[in-house]
Amino acid sequence: MLGEVDSARCSIARATEVLGDRWTVLILRDLFNGIRRFDELASHLGVARNVLTRRLAGLVDAGVAVRTPYREPGSRERHEYRLTAAGRDLRPVLLALVAWGDAHRPDPQGPPVRFEHDGCGGRVGLELRCSHGHEVPPRELLSIPQ
Amino acid sequence: MLGEVDSARCSIARATEVLGDRWTVLILRDLFNGIRRFDELASHLGVARNVLTRRLAGLVDAGVAVRTPYREPGSRERHEYRLTAAGRDLRPVLLALVAWGDAHRPDPQGPPVRFEHDGCGGRVGLELRCSHGHEVPPRELLSIPQ
Repeated sequence: MLGEVDSARCSIARATEVLGDRWTVLILRDLFNGIRRFDELASHLGVARNVLTRRLAGLVDAGVAVRTPYREPGSRERHEYRLTAAGRDLRPVLLALVAWGDAHRPDPQGPPVRFEHDGCGGRVGLELRCSHGHEVPPRELLSIPQ
Repeated sequence: MLGEVDSARCSIARATEVLGDRWTVLILRDLFNGIRRFDELASHLGVARNVLTRRLAGLVDAGVAVRTPYREPGSRERHEYRLTAAGRDLRPVLLALVAWGDAHRPDPQGPPVRFEHDGCGGRVGLELRCSHGHEVPPRELLSIPQ
């Protein structure tokens, strides 16, 4: 349970002011993947350029991405987008979406991406764990309105 | 990094087909909170009833909620909505949104909800951990397209 809480004070509501749009989440995915340039994002996502422009502006306004100019020899100035620290902190949200998608909307070819601990090779996943080091099963999760 | 991957095979894309809407996420939050009846959801969320109807139908179609009739003495039959197992599995997504909101859109009064391990009292959070039991810092997370 997430706990009864006044909507006006809800952290989820504040987070979804940034994320509450499907394209925005997919753009963040591509930025995590190192796809940074407007034209590359547009072609990889297959999204209308005006939609992409609006969504990227929203991510910049929200402080999760920064827009920086670059220029290829002989071509006009263009822009690329990079995640800020706040943007990189959205990784758990995307990993949780990956886990749910893999479990409940499985790809017939199996999970398209495997997450591995560099060096150790262990499979990486999100865990609910408490400050005393216990893994917390859903039924033992208390949410306490403050 | 989430790993370069064909959008058509992306687990995030499949998950956001269910979640890719701000109201949908807030409705899920309320269902986790035990708010189940249409009228209660409408008043708690302050959402237009036609929007709520559409979003709830989408959650039912997606298999994350079920709609069941109930009848109060003397009033006509109404409906309530409960999360399915697939719906309850969305909890990590919501917890990741809470964590991000608390960190990057802090409420001046502090986090509205605290998550505690029932019995032990430890503070509960999401951790990236590998199958060998290591906590995985972001820089040690490898994503490997399959």
